[in-house]
Amino acid sequence: MNACVQALTQLLGASNVLTEGDLSSYELDWRKRWRGRALAVVRPGSTEEVAAVMRLCAQHKTAVVPQGGNTGLVGGGITDTSGSQILLSLRRLTQVRQVDAANLTLTLEAGCVLAQAQQAAAQAGLLLPLSLASEGSCTIGGNLASNAGGTQVLRYGNARELCLGLEVVTPAGDVWNGLSGLRKDNTGYDLRHLYIGSEGTLGVITAAVLRLAPQPVARMTAMATCQRLADAVRLLELAQHVASSLLTGFEVMNTLSLALVRKHFPQLSQPLPPSPWTVLLELSDGESPSHAEAVFNTLLERAQAQGVIQDAAVASSMAQSNTMWHVRESISLAQSQEGLNIKHDIALPISCIPVFDEQAGALLASHMPGIRVVNFGHLGDGNLHYNVQAPLGVDPVRFLQEQEGPVNQIVYDAVQRLGGSISAEHGIGQLKCSELQQRKSPVELDLMRSIKRALDPASLMNPGKVLAP
Amino acid sequence: MNACVQALTQLLGASNVLTEGDLSSYELDWRKRWRGRALAVVRPGSTEEVAAVMRLCAQHKTAVVPQGGNTGLVGGGITDTSGSQILLSLRRLTQVRQVDAANLTLTLEAGCVLAQAQQAAAQAGLLLPLSLASEGSCTIGGNLASNAGGTQVLRYGNARELCLGLEVVTPAGDVWNGLSGLRKDNTGYDLRHLYIGSEGTLGVITAAVLRLAPQPVARMTAMATCQRLADAVRLLELAQHVASSLLTGFEVMNTLSLALVRKHFPQLSQPLPPSPWTVLLELSDGESPSHAEAVFNTLLERAQAQGVIQDAAVASSMAQSNTMWHVRESISLAQSQEGLNIKHDIALPISCIPVFDEQAGALLASHMPGIRVVNFGHLGDGNLHYNVQAPLGVDPVRFLQEQEGPVNQIVYDAVQRLGGSISAEHGIGQLKCSELQQRKSPVELDLMRSIKRALDPASLMNPGKVLAP
Repeated sequence: MNACVQALTQLLGASNVLTEGDLSSYELDWRKRWRGRALAVVRPGSTEEVAAVMRLCAQHKTAVVPQGGNTGLVGGGITDTSGSQILLSLRRLTQVRQVDAANLTLTLEAGCVLAQAQQAAAQAGLLLPLSLASEGSCTIGGNLASNAGGTQVLRYGNARELCLGLEVVTPAGDVWNGLSGLRKDNTGYDLRHLYIGSEGTLGVITAAVLRLAPQPVARMTAMATCQRLADAVRLLELAQHVASSLLTGFEVMNTLSLALVRKHFPQLSQPLPPSPWTVLLELSDGESPSHAEAVFNTLLERAQAQGVIQDAAVASSMAQSNTMWHVRESISLAQSQEGLNIKHDIALPISCIPVFDEQAGALLASHMPGIRVVNFGHLGDGNLHYNVQAPLGVDPVRFLQEQEGPVNQIVYDAVQRLGGSISAEHGIGQLKCSELQQRKSPVELDLMRSIKRALDPASLMNPGKVLAP
Repeated sequence: MNACVQALTQLLGASNVLTEGDLSSYELDWRKRWRGRALAVVRPGSTEEVAAVMRLCAQHKTAVVPQGGNTGLVGGGITDTSGSQILLSLRRLTQVRQVDAANLTLTLEAGCVLAQAQQAAAQAGLLLPLSLASEGSCTIGGNLASNAGGTQVLRYGNARELCLGLEVVTPAGDVWNGLSGLRKDNTGYDLRHLYIGSEGTLGVITAAVLRLAPQPVARMTAMATCQRLADAVRLLELAQHVASSLLTGFEVMNTLSLALVRKHFPQLSQPLPPSPWTVLLELSDGESPSHAEAVFNTLLERAQAQGVIQDAAVASSMAQSNTMWHVRESISLAQSQEGLNIKHDIALPISCIPVFDEQAGALLASHMPGIRVVNFGHLGDGNLHYNVQAPLGVDPVRFLQEQEGPVNQIVYDAVQRLGGSISAEHGIGQLKCSELQQRKSPVELDLMRSIKRALDPASLMNPGKVLAP
């Protein structure tokens, strides 16, 4: 047996150092794109145990790949195939350490599943305003390591903005306790924000303090149709002025997005007829249902009067609201059923989104006539899932094989020209590592590499992720 | 002439490399606590010039102290007295580069004065929600380098949370352009948050993208009295539930704070009689004045019904609202008139504030009978300006001399026991450098030092600030 594995087994017991049997729930990502082979899957049960694991791995110069719920989309939590890296699962760190209602904070361990964390907040009559499609299995540690986004970023920010403190184990096995839960703290460099979004390449997040909010008492959902994407941007501006911080959701979907949902999920009733663009809006109100309704009506009336929207349907029950969200969330699945496609998770200044859509669309169409763009996403955050599907009649497998490179080039070039980002909320992981290398300035890459060398001098933390070796 | 100064003069002209005459507006901080002596005061006019200055200084191994409006409270922007450091003034970088209403962002240079930045936003019908006492002279670069707080943090966050992008010149004279203005960007380490709050010790901020908000259409201000500090915390909780994100200000003041204002500014009318605690609340509403009033009334009625407040006065005009804020902002000045005192800018989890006040108060009283605590601050952010004044009849100069050490020890020990911060919004600078050294864990100090070494290997950026040499 490998000396490191032997030492780890002595530390944690054989039941928490797995080397045999089916380890695919750890070694294979949930979309089955990356399959790693780990030296061992190691499952510590406390921060102290994580620290001890890291000390042993440092001693044995063994690389460590931290993993939470294994729901990532960029292969950030999967080991390579060498069989020499430790897969460090945080799933056993599940303690909710404190709910502090007066401070509006929740302190909990990295392995807590997001849905459980939401429940812990709800039990105290409060809201943890982080909500993702994978919330039933993703973990808080993973959410923070990848700075997760989701559907309420517009109002409450990304995982980053919800985090008031961290506990981190360094590659050397030291514990940094930064679990302050303070809203103001100007005592030196902000280590918290450095670890958030670093995808396990600088240290292991073991616990966090998250910001809570009062529970809204009313929620209003609507769909509205726009002729042009620029009108959807105008609607967003109007909504921000009329509804201000009540506005919690603003999603946009192009015709094809909803057409695919219609085709593959005909039982899902869509409240509005096809239109070039459909917007899903949501308000959350701490005051009263009647107040939420009044604000919503004012907004929609003004939008209609200004010619920004054509048609609108307001959900009159929670069931109808859920259906609207269900439609929005079925786009990805409908796309999969339509066939393999080239996915993008991009961000742009919101003001640049209409021109991006025009430019990228025209370039793609001239690159390959009939190419289909499924453009949808969190317009309120400037974040589009701009996915590209084969022309009708073209084999999707071959399309993906042959076109992924050129299509990425066209899309990312257009993003870059407008000052956008090639990864809005999914991170870099192994998927976009070389793309990052090509697109970031040498100055920025140098700064990142200096930080990596400073905090992980032996290069043991999640090697090959984010920064190319 | 020194070779570095000669080269700088060749670069920028003699009028922008000052070595003679009265340089006290640069060399002396505005409270006259620190007087440095600079090798030269250097005033570049563009990012490119800042980069060229940094390259020359790196070549000549000359240390650089960046300075904005010179309104800092911890001596962070003042050189040492050796006459060997360059004072790099950013005041000539005053361009507003872009107001993007659809993206709700403002891109501007580091030397813009905060009040001018607020005006640029207002001209576009938008709000830059950063507001400080020094806004007429502090600069955006300084605000970000020190992560300024102010009176609207509760709703909009610190300077850090308002910043969506930075342009930074490194100690080697490279320009990092991170002026993205994106709300979501998960492409590697968050350099932005590392520079924000680093007080010019890692690089020079030359420009920034700030987040704007819609202008509120109504503002309501009130004062209310509470018997206990715990009641003020309960009022805050209630306000957060009733008014939610309309709540933009929540300040607390103890009896002595307002008594000193009464004594030294008798012409300033205080709407409520003396009470153990007085709260200043503000709501900002995007909807309508009548809506703001209705929410405010609901809040105050509930607070009264629950016995949380004794008395309340609602401002019925802008003038009355201004007077209330004027009272709050006169506390510091009234304290100065009362005599020198020992100032603290601390943060605590909000839930711990009542117990902190009790513990620290009791310890100080037993340390020195008659000692007077002027406790006021941004309760909504957990941030207190907990200032300690000599007992009546004791000479303030001698008190400061003899008691600063022991009083700091008592106050900061109490802060530390409750997981608080010794600098909430003022930073570390030179004032709290050794205190930081003593109070941060060795793990955290090591992490910070690694980062400093990584980004400023020659130790030329603002040496002796934040981290002790």
